[in-house]
Amino acid sequence: MEKGSLLYEGKAKKIFSTNLEDVVHVEYKDSATAFNGIKKAEITGKGRLNNQISSLIFMKLHEKGIPTHFIKQISDHEQLVKQMSIIPLEVVVRNIAAGSFSKTFGIEEGTRLKQTIVDLYLKSDELGDPLITEDRIEILDIAPREEVQEIKEQALKINDVLKNLFNQINIELIDFKLEFGKDGNGNILLADEISPDTCRLWDKDTNRKLDKDIFRRDLGNLLEAYEEILKRLGGVSICTK
Amino acid sequence: MEKGSLLYEGKAKKIFSTNLEDVVHVEYKDSATAFNGIKKAEITGKGRLNNQISSLIFMKLHEKGIPTHFIKQISDHEQLVKQMSIIPLEVVVRNIAAGSFSKTFGIEEGTRLKQTIVDLYLKSDELGDPLITEDRIEILDIAPREEVQEIKEQALKINDVLKNLFNQINIELIDFKLEFGKDGNGNILLADEISPDTCRLWDKDTNRKLDKDIFRRDLGNLLEAYEEILKRLGGVSICTK
Ligand SMILES: Nc1ncnc2c1ncn2[C@@H]1O[C@H](COP(=O)(O)OP(=O)(O)O)[C@@H](O)[C@H]1O
Ligand SMILES: Nc1ncnc2c1ncn2[C@@H]1O[C@H](COP(=O)(O)OP(=O)(O)O)[C@@H](O)[C@H]1O
Ligand SMILES: [Mg+2]
Ligand SMILES: [Mg+2]
Repeated sequence: MEKGSLLYEGKAKKIFSTNLEDVVHVEYKDSATAFNGIKKAEITGKGRLNNQISSLIFMKLHEKGIPTHFIKQISDHEQLVKQMSIIPLEVVVRNIAAGSFSKTFGIEEGTRLKQTIVDLYLKSDELGDPLITEDRIEILDIAPREEVQEIKEQALKINDVLKNLFNQINIELIDFKLEFGKDGNGNILLADEISPDTCRLWDKDTNRKLDKDIFRRDLGNLLEAYEEILKRLGGVSICTK
Repeated sequence: MEKGSLLYEGKAKKIFSTNLEDVVHVEYKDSATAFNGIKKAEITGKGRLNNQISSLIFMKLHEKGIPTHFIKQISDHEQLVKQMSIIPLEVVVRNIAAGSFSKTFGIEEGTRLKQTIVDLYLKSDELGDPLITEDRIEILDIAPREEVQEIKEQALKINDVLKNLFNQINIELIDFKLEFGKDGNGNILLADEISPDTCRLWDKDTNRKLDKDIFRRDLGNLLEAYEEILKRLGGVSICTK
C-alpha cells in the first residue's frame, strides 16, 4: 500500500490517499485540542496511544458484527481505513451525565441517566458544533430522517459492546462521541476513532478520569492515563517496552 | 367572578385565583423583557394591546376547533382562562429562519425553510431556556414521548390557522412560541398567550417588523407596531378611541 497525498488535516489526524481508490491512510497526530481548538498542546506519544487503542476497539467491534471503516493498523501511529463520505454529525451516546449535558441542566456529573440517550451535534468547527434536533437535521439537508434513525440504532449497539468491553477492565463508560460515514455503495459505517480523546472513561473503584478531561481540566498526566487504558485493553505500549 | 390571591407573577403577566376552582384570572402587565430578563422596560399600553390581540387570536383558534385554555376577555388588560398545569416547554414553530435559529446556523433572517419545523426549548429562566431534544425531554421526565408528539401536532395545526389569519392582513408569520398545559382531566390544551411578544410578524410589503424584535433590537416604536397588529386584526384599540 503506497501513501499518497495529504487529503485533509484535522485537529487529531491526517488523512492521506493510497493507491487503492477506496482506502485512505490515517496518521494520528500528537496534538491535543479542546474547546473547539482554543486550548492546544503537543503531547508526544498521544497519537501512538490513540491509534493503538482505537485499532483494538474497532477490531473488537468487528468481532461483534458491527460494520466499520477500519481495515488494519499499519504502524504504531498509522492505520488504513475505508474512505468514507463523513456525515457531519457528532453522535454522542450518554450513559451517565457529564460535560455539557450536566452543565446545561445543572445535573451533577456522575449521575446515571434513567436511560441511555443519543445526542446529535452538527460537526462544524465554524458553528461551534451546536446541539441539533432531528427536525433541524432534516430541513437543513444534513441527513434524511431514516439515516439518522439508523445511525442512532447503530450507536446504541456500539454502546452495548463498549460498555461490556470497558466493564471487563473495571472502567465506567460515561459517554462517547462517534462519527459515521457512507461508503461508495451508500452503506452507513462507523468511521473516525474511538479513543480516550472521544470517550469519558472513569476507573470504577476510584472514579479517576482516564480520558481527555485530564487535558481539558488540567487534571494531571494524560499519557499515563491513556497508557493505562491501552494496558487494561491488553495492548502493548511500545513506549513502555 | 371574584379575583382572588396572586398565584404567580411572571415577566409579562400576573395570575390570580378566582372563586372557581379551575379558573384563573390573567392580568397583562406593561413590562417588556428580553434576553432572559436582562433587558427590561415599562411600556404603558403594552399589556392592554397584548391582552386584546391574544384574546382575538384565541377566539379565532376556538372557531377553528383548536382547544385552548381561553375563556373570555374581561377588561382591556385582563382575561379568564382555565387553570392549567403548564408543561415546561417553549414550543417554537418556525416557517422562516430568524433569531437564534439564523444565528446558530449562519442562515440569513428571512430565508424560508423548506418545511415548517417545531423546536422545543426547556422553559427555565434559571437554565436560560436551552434547546432540548425529544430524547432529553423523555429521560429528564419533562413529558412523555406521546405528549410531545401531540404537542408538536397541535403546534402545526395552530400554525396553519395563524398563517392564514396573518396572511389575510398582509403579515408574514415568521415564527412563534407556544406553551401547552394539562387541565384537571389530563387534556393537553394550548395555554399562555399569542401576541407580538411571542411571534415574529413582518409586514409583507415592507418587511417591517411588527413584534418584540423592535424592543430587543431598538428598532423604534413598539406600541405603534402592536396597535397596527390589533387594528389589522379588526380589534378596537381603546387608546386610539
Ligand atoms: N474513513 C474516513 N474517511 C474519510 N474521512 C474520515 C474517515 N474517518 C474519519 N474521517 C475524518 O477525518 C478528519 C480528520 O480527523 P480529525 O483530526 O479528528 O478531524 P477534526 O479536527 O475534524 O475532528 C475528520 O474530518 C474525520 O471526520
Ligand atoms: N392557563 C394557565 N394556567 C396556569 N398558568 C398559566 C396559564 N397560562 C399561562 N400560564 C403561566 O403563567 C405564567 C405567567 O406568564 P408570563 O408572565 O408570560 O411568565 P414567564 O415570565 O414565565 O414567561 C407563566 O409561567 C405561564 O406559563
Ligand atoms: Mg476529530
Ligand atoms: Mg411568558
